Amino acid sequence: MNQVGGPASGDSTVADLGEFSLISQFTRGLQMSPAVSLGPGDDAAVFLVNGSAVCSVDMLVEGVHFRRDWSDPTHIGRKAVAVNAADLEAMGAFGVSMVVALGLPPELSVPWVREFSTGLREEAEAAGVVVVGGDVTAARDITISVTVIGETRGLPVVTRSGAAPDQLVAVRGRLGWSAAGHSVLSRGFRSPRVAVEAHRVPQVPYGQGAVAAMAGATAMIDVSDGLLADLGHVARASGVTIDLDSSALPIDEPLVTVAAATGVDPLTFVLSGGDDHALVACFSVGDVPMGWTIIGRTVAVPTHAEPTVLVDGELAPRERGWEHFRT
Amino acid sequence: MNQVGGPASGDSTVADLGEFSLISQFTRGLQMSPAVSLGPGDDAAVFLVNGSAVCSVDMLVEGVHFRRDWSDPTHIGRKAVAVNAADLEAMGAFGVSMVVALGLPPELSVPWVREFSTGLREEAEAAGVVVVGGDVTAARDITISVTVIGETRGLPVVTRSGAAPDQLVAVRGRLGWSAAGHSVLSRGFRSPRVAVEAHRVPQVPYGQGAVAAMAGATAMIDVSDGLLADLGHVARASGVTIDLDSSALPIDEPLVTVAAATGVDPLTFVLSGGDDHALVACFSVGDVPMGWTIIGRTVAVPTHAEPTVLVDGELAPRERGWEHFRT
Repeated sequence: MNQVGGPASGDSTVADLGEFSLISQFTRGLQMSPAVSLGPGDDAAVFLVNGSAVCSVDMLVEGVHFRRDWSDPTHIGRKAVAVNAADLEAMGAFGVSMVVALGLPPELSVPWVREFSTGLREEAEAAGVVVVGGDVTAARDITISVTVIGETRGLPVVTRSGAAPDQLVAVRGRLGWSAAGHSVLSRGFRSPRVAVEAHRVPQVPYGQGAVAAMAGATAMIDVSDGLLADLGHVARASGVTIDLDSSALPIDEPLVTVAAATGVDPLTFVLSGGDDHALVACFSVGDVPMGWTIIGRTVAVPTHAEPTVLVDGELAPRERGWEHFRT
Repeated sequence: MNQVGGPASGDSTVADLGEFSLISQFTRGLQMSPAVSLGPGDDAAVFLVNGSAVCSVDMLVEGVHFRRDWSDPTHIGRKAVAVNAADLEAMGAFGVSMVVALGLPPELSVPWVREFSTGLREEAEAAGVVVVGGDVTAARDITISVTVIGETRGLPVVTRSGAAPDQLVAVRGRLGWSAAGHSVLSRGFRSPRVAVEAHRVPQVPYGQGAVAAMAGATAMIDVSDGLLADLGHVARASGVTIDLDSSALPIDEPLVTVAAATGVDPLTFVLSGGDDHALVACFSVGDVPMGWTIIGRTVAVPTHAEPTVLVDGELAPRERGWEHFRT
């Protein structure tokens, strides 16, 4: 009956540690960057921002965004950073720093906290951000709020609203993998392993946001709610219709495997599965960067119609997806 | 048996609203500043920072940091911003922007959310920060994580570590009021009203951090854990001993009233009560700004001793305070 992440016999708990020793689990041996003039330990952190500052926050709550029996603490730490750093990518910005606020149950084991901290650091390093500060408090459920701050380095930011008709829509990163992994885990299975791992930690295509910005991307978003849902935000913000070509959508092997085992159309994962944090952007013809996959185009919104997302010229049925993976 | 903050008959709930309508409760009619080029609604916010960026985060959890039966939603919103903005003040920085991540129980009433949002905005305005973004998720307990970003405008930041012997220690803001209010509330009373209100919303001396920085403050902190505890951080970080003069400590009228009613020494509130977020700083003699109260001095740490905080030349008993107001 020992709760996952609870103390094994002999493990000390967060309550045993106390606030200041707990904080040292996160700050000990942290590497700063030249931009950071003051890291953790004072009232606030101090760092330089080159160009405009770009800032995003996300909160992850146990039982809502992750489960301790599905994900290791390292995965959870990595995911908490990745979902946020993906927002910087989606603006075409460069990472600088992050702060993290944590609500932790007093009975949580110290090894859990240590591994979680390792995950935070690993992903921060991958994303090019430095952990400069944080806050720790008691809470009933593990609650993680990460704020990332990035910089533009003189590049224009890529919003959701700049797309125009007759542009190409292209994607970089995975689509549907996390949803396929969730589908597997919720049926009590642990394979295919790559899908399960994709659900635990998204593989954000770090650096590609800036590549898209430099290539002249007119609009960009990271796929957190699902391709249809997120391109819907771009369509409405830009006032265009987006038409996806289903034959161009990448249906990767793990999706085929999971779809076959669960009896669903793998395209459902691709169109409606969120949480992979692929980048999807609009470009003028000729501007699509190397390594990006063209999956559709923008068209003018017909008179008396609303901006929307089509698949092969037809309205994508809304029920195909997202509620599917929400509950 | 209706939970405070739960829906009255007819009130719609957070679950009724859904994510996007909920977000609009926070973003509708928000005022931006000239520094902000992109506010809420995209993947991240974009704004300018003049000088170095200064950043702090805090997480407030229902039942740990506030109680819905003790505080109105407006108070809770204001407090969530104030505790954070006080950290910018304590660096001598100027506020720029803030992002807020919220975990809200689905059964929370919409009017509660609306009033909370009003409180956030009121305090943000007082603190000179603009709400530029956020995240909302479901949670069992109301959980509020505010990240504030400030700027130095070319002034040096004031850390905890710059104090030297033979300087003066001065305070601006209230000491002990919140603890006195907590003492009253925990006994089931609601007066003196000023003390109760001080517990609900700290009165941060906005602008005085920069005043202290410009006057040449050598070290500064905001009093969140209690005067002795927080000056202990300054003493250790700076390598000095701090000697407070008990006769110089302000014992304001509400503290006297509450102390008399509860049979404690009012000095306990002043020395050990936290959560008022007064600013306490060290200055060379002659540098103390107008309106600040001199309460002690720094002295060299005696050989073989550790940096510490004294009251009238004697070691302040550790048990006088903090645990008192914790649990």
